[in-house]
Amino acid sequence: MPESGPPGPSIPGQRSLPSGAAPEVPTPAVPGLPITAAAFGLEAVLHPTTAPPPPVTGTPPATPAEPVFQRVLGGPTGLGTNSLSLAGSSTGTAPSPPVAVAESAAPPLPEAAPEAVPESASGVERVLGGPTGLGTASLSLARTAHRPPPESVPAPPAPAPPAEGQAVPGLYHHPIPEPDPLRVEEVSRRIKRWAEDEVQLYPEEWEGQFDGFSVGRYMVGCHPDAPTVDHLMIATRLMVAENAVDDCYCEDHGGSPVGLGGRLLLAHTALDPLHTTPEYAPAWLESLGSDPPRRAYRSAMDYFTAMASPSQVDRYRHDMARLHLGYLAEAAWAETDHVPEVWEYLAMRQFNNFRPCPTITDTIGGYELPADLHARPEMQRVIALAGNATTIVNDLYSYTKELAGPGRHLNLPVVIAEREKLSERDAYLKAVEVHNDLMHAFEAAAAELAAACPLPPVVRFLKGVATWVDGNHDWHRTNTFRYSLPAFW
Amino acid sequence: MPESGPPGPSIPGQRSLPSGAAPEVPTPAVPGLPITAAAFGLEAVLHPTTAPPPPVTGTPPATPAEPVFQRVLGGPTGLGTNSLSLAGSSTGTAPSPPVAVAESAAPPLPEAAPEAVPESASGVERVLGGPTGLGTASLSLARTAHRPPPESVPAPPAPAPPAEGQAVPGLYHHPIPEPDPLRVEEVSRRIKRWAEDEVQLYPEEWEGQFDGFSVGRYMVGCHPDAPTVDHLMIATRLMVAENAVDDCYCEDHGGSPVGLGGRLLLAHTALDPLHTTPEYAPAWLESLGSDPPRRAYRSAMDYFTAMASPSQVDRYRHDMARLHLGYLAEAAWAETDHVPEVWEYLAMRQFNNFRPCPTITDTIGGYELPADLHARPEMQRVIALAGNATTIVNDLYSYTKELAGPGRHLNLPVVIAEREKLSERDAYLKAVEVHNDLMHAFEAAAAELAAACPLPPVVRFLKGVATWVDGNHDWHRTNTFRYSLPAFW
Repeated sequence: MPESGPPGPSIPGQRSLPSGAAPEVPTPAVPGLPITAAAFGLEAVLHPTTAPPPPVTGTPPATPAEPVFQRVLGGPTGLGTNSLSLAGSSTGTAPSPPVAVAESAAPPLPEAAPEAVPESASGVERVLGGPTGLGTASLSLARTAHRPPPESVPAPPAPAPPAEGQAVPGLYHHPIPEPDPLRVEEVSRRIKRWAEDEVQLYPEEWEGQFDGFSVGRYMVGCHPDAPTVDHLMIATRLMVAENAVDDCYCEDHGGSPVGLGGRLLLAHTALDPLHTTPEYAPAWLESLGSDPPRRAYRSAMDYFTAMASPSQVDRYRHDMARLHLGYLAEAAWAETDHVPEVWEYLAMRQFNNFRPCPTITDTIGGYELPADLHARPEMQRVIALAGNATTIVNDLYSYTKELAGPGRHLNLPVVIAEREKLSERDAYLKAVEVHNDLMHAFEAAAAELAAACPLPPVVRFLKGVATWVDGNHDWHRTNTFRYSLPAFW
Repeated sequence: MPESGPPGPSIPGQRSLPSGAAPEVPTPAVPGLPITAAAFGLEAVLHPTTAPPPPVTGTPPATPAEPVFQRVLGGPTGLGTNSLSLAGSSTGTAPSPPVAVAESAAPPLPEAAPEAVPESASGVERVLGGPTGLGTASLSLARTAHRPPPESVPAPPAPAPPAEGQAVPGLYHHPIPEPDPLRVEEVSRRIKRWAEDEVQLYPEEWEGQFDGFSVGRYMVGCHPDAPTVDHLMIATRLMVAENAVDDCYCEDHGGSPVGLGGRLLLAHTALDPLHTTPEYAPAWLESLGSDPPRRAYRSAMDYFTAMASPSQVDRYRHDMARLHLGYLAEAAWAETDHVPEVWEYLAMRQFNNFRPCPTITDTIGGYELPADLHARPEMQRVIALAGNATTIVNDLYSYTKELAGPGRHLNLPVVIAEREKLSERDAYLKAVEVHNDLMHAFEAAAAELAAACPLPPVVRFLKGVATWVDGNHDWHRTNTFRYSLPAFW
C-alpha cells in the first residue's frame, strides 16, 4: 500500500534558521470571550510586534486522580480551555506582514522564496484578505524566524538555503522554514535511543534505513509550536511506530495482505487495550512485547497517554482504527486484484491516511481542542480534507518509486490512468489537480470554521493542522534520495 | 462470523406488564452538585415511593446553529448536563426495596421469579450492599412495573408469565420484565415500514425472516427508559442496519471474507462520510444507495445524527470502526483457516462486539454522557467489559446453530475446546464461566466508577449499559425458534 512515512536520507550539511516558531494564537481582548479580528491574526498584522515569544508551557491534562465532576462542572477552567492561557502567553508571536505565499502552478525553484500569489488563491486568502490566514501558518512561522531577535539572544546565523529537492510542478503548497536544527538533532538522538534501547525496533542492518527516515526533521518541521522536545518526542514515537506496523505487517519488510486483518487487530489492542479475565489477560499482555510493531505501538501509546487527555487519546484511537480499516481495504483489493474506481480509491485513501498525525497537533502543542469542538461536522470536514490533501502528496512523490516496485502498486495517478483511460502523464497531472482542489477546499473550510467559531483553541488547532500539512509536504520534497519526480515536464 | 443479532421468531400470545420503565437517576440534593447516597439509589431505597414517574422528555442536542462557544464555555448548562434535569424529572422512579437478583449457578426455571442471592454476589452488590445497584437495573425496572399504579391509571392486567425459552444453566444474568407490548407493536410496525418503504432492505421472500428477527421486542427490552418511540426507532434502525451489513457482506446472505475489507470500508463511508472533490463526490453519494446494507446504514445514521450530539455521533462512528475491524480479523482467520488462541479470539470479539448498541443508551434515553467522561479509562473499561460479556452470550446461545452450519464457525466454546483440548461439554461450561467472570468484572468496575464519579449522567449511563446487557440476554433466551441449548446438563 502507499507508504505513509517512508525512510529517506537525512540532508547533510544543512545550515538552518534559528527556531522562532511558536503558536500564533490571537489574544482575546477579554480572556475567555470570543474574538474575531484577533482570531484571524489581523490585529497582529495591523500591529506587528518584534517581541520574542515567551516559552509556551503546555498544561498537562488532568490526572485520573482529579475528581471528574470538577472537570465537568467547573466551567471553562478545565482542559478544554488550556489554550486560552496558551493564547494569552503567546502574544508576541504575531504573524508577519502580508507576503506572497503559494507556489501553485509555478515552476519549481531551487529556493523557497516567496512568489506571486497565484490566480487560484486559497480559500483562506479569499476569506481573510491576504496571506495571513490559516493556510499560511508555515510561512508566518518562516517570517517569525526571520524576525530580528532581542538583544539578549545571540545573533542567528545567516538564513540557510532550503534543503535540496524540488516540489512537484504546479502543486499548490506552502514552503516552510528549515526545521530548527538543534531540535532536529536532539529528537533524532532520542528517537534512535528509544527505537534501539526501549523497543528493539530493528536489526542492526536496518540502522541506515532508520537514520534515512530522518523522522526528527519530519516531526520538528510539522510541529514548530511544540513547547518542548518531550512534546515532539510524542509525535515522533507514534510516527515511527505507525511506519513499523505498515512496513512489517503490510508492506516492505515482510508484510502481506494475507491474514492482515488478524495481525492488525492484535496490534490495535496495543492502542485500544483488551479487557478480559485474569486467566487470559497475561497472554495478551505478553503479546504486546512479541514483535517490533507491537512493542513500538505500545510504548509510543504509553508515552502519548501520559501527556494527552483521555479525549485526545480516544480521538487518536479512532483515527488509528480508521487507518487500519484503510490498510485492510487496500489489502482486500490487492488480494482480489481489484482496481477501484477513482472515487473508491479516494475513499480508501481517506482512511489509509496521515490523519492520525495532524490530529494530535494540540497534544504536541501542549493544549487541547475540546472534544465537543473536535466532533463537530465542520471540524471533521476540515480534518478529512487536510488528511486527504496531504495523503495525495504522498501518492505524487512516491509515484516513480512505486512504479519501480514489484507488482502494481495503487496510487492516484495509476488509478486515474486505468479508470479514465489517460496517459501516465495526463493522469499524473490530473492527480496534481485533485490534490490542489483538496487543498483549496481544506483552506476554505478551515477559514469558514474559524470565522464561525473564533475560539483560540479552534483557531490554533486549525493552524496546527495547516502547519502539519505544509511540514509533511516539505519532508516529501526534500527526500531526494527516496523520491524522484517523473519526467513529465 | 458469530451472528450478532440473528433473526428469531416473535413470541406469539404474550401477555405483558404495563410499561413502568423509566430512568432511575437519583435526584441530587442540590441540583448540579455531586451526590453520593442518592447516586446509588440508597436514598430511594430508604424512602421508597409509589408515585408514578412523570414522562421523561429528552432534551435534543444543540443544533449546529447554536454558537459553539456557548456550549464550550457555558459551564454546566450545556448538553453534558441534560441528564441533570432528567434526573430531577424522574424523582418518582425510585428503585424498589431490596430483593434477590441473580440467577448465577441456578437451575433454569420456567419463570423469572426472584431467587436466592448466589454465593458469587456481583461487584455491584458487594459495593452497594444490596441489589439496588447498577447491575440490577433490569430487576428494579421489573419491580417498578409491579408497583401498584395511582388511581388515575387503569389497573394493569395480571402479570404475564415470561416468554418461553430457558437461560443457559449457570449463566450469571438478570431477568427483565416483559417489554412493553404497546411499544413493541409500534416499533415493529414502524421498522417494517422503514425497511420496506425507505431503504428497500429485503426481497419479498425474506419478509418472514425480518419479522422473525423481532427487533422491536429486542430494542424495547434493551431501552426501557426511552422517552418516546422515536427514540426507540433510532436504536432499532441502527440494529437492523448493522445486521444487514453483517448478513449481506460477511455472512448468511451472500457474504464472504474474500474482498470484505473493500466492501466494509465503502459501507463505513455511510457512517463516516467521504470529503472529496466535486468531480468524484457524486459517484460516492450514489454508491450509498446502491445496495440494501449501504441504504440501511445511511438512512439509520441520518436519523441518528439528527437526534444525537456530534460527540455522540463520533462515539458511534468509532465503535462501528471497531466492529468492522473485528469483522475483518475474523474474516482473515477464516481465509487462512487459522484457529486463534483463546486470548486472541477474546481480543477479536472485543471488536466484533455488541458495543455500538449499548453505547448509544444515552441518545436513546434522551440525554448525553459528556464526551470527556465517556473517554475516561474507567468508563472505557466498563463499556468494554459489558460489551464482551454480552457478546459471549451470543456465542453461547448460538453454539448449536453454528455447529449445525457449514464449515467450522469460531465461537468461544469451539476455540476453547480446540486450544485447550477440552471436550465440547467442558469447553462450553468453561465458556459460561468466562462469561460470568466478565459480567462480575463489568458490574464491579461500574460500581467503582459510580462511587468515584456519582454524577447523574454517569450513573444513568452505567445503568443504561447494564439494562442493555440484561435486555440482550433476554432476547437471546427467548429466541427458542432460532436457538436451542446443547444437551450438556
